[in-house]
Amino acid sequence: MKDSPSEFRPARVAILGVGLLGGSVARAIRQSVPSVHVVGIVRCADKGQQWVDSGVVDAVTESIEQACGNVDVVVIATPVDTVAEKVIAVAKASNPDCLITDVGSTKRTIVKAVSQCPEAVAKFVAAHPIAGSEKTGAEHATADLFVGKVVVLTPSEQTPADLLERAEQFWRLTGGRIVTLSPQDHDTHLASVSHVPHLASSAVAKLVCEQSADLVGSGWTDITRVAAGDPAMWLAICQENRTAIEEQLRRLAGSIEEVRQWMHSRDDESLLRWLKEAKTIRDSF
Amino acid sequence: MKDSPSEFRPARVAILGVGLLGGSVARAIRQSVPSVHVVGIVRCADKGQQWVDSGVVDAVTESIEQACGNVDVVVIATPVDTVAEKVIAVAKASNPDCLITDVGSTKRTIVKAVSQCPEAVAKFVAAHPIAGSEKTGAEHATADLFVGKVVVLTPSEQTPADLLERAEQFWRLTGGRIVTLSPQDHDTHLASVSHVPHLASSAVAKLVCEQSADLVGSGWTDITRVAAGDPAMWLAICQENRTAIEEQLRRLAGSIEEVRQWMHSRDDESLLRWLKEAKTIRDSF
Repeated sequence: MKDSPSEFRPARVAILGVGLLGGSVARAIRQSVPSVHVVGIVRCADKGQQWVDSGVVDAVTESIEQACGNVDVVVIATPVDTVAEKVIAVAKASNPDCLITDVGSTKRTIVKAVSQCPEAVAKFVAAHPIAGSEKTGAEHATADLFVGKVVVLTPSEQTPADLLERAEQFWRLTGGRIVTLSPQDHDTHLASVSHVPHLASSAVAKLVCEQSADLVGSGWTDITRVAAGDPAMWLAICQENRTAIEEQLRRLAGSIEEVRQWMHSRDDESLLRWLKEAKTIRDSF
Repeated sequence: MKDSPSEFRPARVAILGVGLLGGSVARAIRQSVPSVHVVGIVRCADKGQQWVDSGVVDAVTESIEQACGNVDVVVIATPVDTVAEKVIAVAKASNPDCLITDVGSTKRTIVKAVSQCPEAVAKFVAAHPIAGSEKTGAEHATADLFVGKVVVLTPSEQTPADLLERAEQFWRLTGGRIVTLSPQDHDTHLASVSHVPHLASSAVAKLVCEQSADLVGSGWTDITRVAAGDPAMWLAICQENRTAIEEQLRRLAGSIEEVRQWMHSRDDESLLRWLKEAKTIRDSF
């Protein structure tokens, strides 16, 4: 009996890259589809065995070919600058009706690179679950990381409609809420609500000095939390979304310079209005 | 029997302004000195009665004169731009060995204004407990708000040594850790770790637009939390600490502009080094 579209229950899933996100997808799918078999594709099977022992995945392998020959879904959960090449490698190693998806925080560059390979276009639906943490590693993976969180799917014009539907169903199995955007819109919006806020957090962290370190309060701790994230991962995000990030950095610097000028000219009316606008926005969340 | 300096246990305390901070001082002192009588000085005694009913203070009054005639300590917990005038009013209404302290987030302007009044200089030790929340109001006050938190005392050169010692002992009763700084150093450091981070948080909140609102994640939520704070309170802080804030805003804008230029010129090495430096700083907290 063939699964009807509304009952997509993958029998076999491969996760390429068993970290916080890959591990959490594995745990979430194993929870919602108890019969599923999840194999982790890792760089070192000996080290990866710990993720079998701790119940993140059912098995691990170092081989894309071995893992992807007979799976329904492959999730690429590697750094954004490596996703496109992995998608293409998996597309060549997997069966014709395999769904390939990813978890990358940038989408335009990935979708564009994949578009050069028809085999991959026929199997790939780019995804970005808006969930994560400054923590890294599958030891922090949880089955509920995506519950109630937005998962953005960014199909291209070439993405088959039934494949997109399967991707939506797959990601719903993790508890996510599906939002569909163009890769370009995704990257523009994420620059403004994630990538540039991250850089602002790092910039704020760098304002501290030895003498002021004892004086930080809970506000500073909140603002700078994400600055503890993996620098290499954030560099890759910046590289992949350069134009949109540069534009939003310009907006942010302009905003801060505007405030500085109000401070200098004692334009308290403008400053108060600006603080109120920011509060109204924040209160709406 | 006169209290020895190491056993300062106030019998009567007045709190001018029963909000989050004033209410938390009241609750903390009542917990550590069960025999104490705490009176709240409020704008409207009928409305203030709720703070008696909910156990924040023992009594309320609208009159500074009535409250301060026979108390050991008066805590000024009003917006920073009103602290100095309240200190002077309380100094005139209180007995000669009364300690007056405050909770304001800025210190230089307050200490300078108070220095014009010898009666107030003899009684006032400026304080800033580094604790708080984006929440306001005594309904959120807790006895443990200051436990383990830094309380900065900023005496002037005129502050009597025994008065400073009494202030240290009073603030220790709240569970705070005492740090002593000059008013100027306090304001410079706080601009870099609190005031400008707050403005950065508001600026980040304002990057969001209607289309991107659905895409915010936990990083954005953390970074922008303090932007929900009271705009009038933060305007007053900006007014009181204008020079230091303007200087730190210039540093922050310069840092963001530097990152933008690295993005533009693809200087990934500099960007990665900068991200690593920020992570090292954040990880040390």
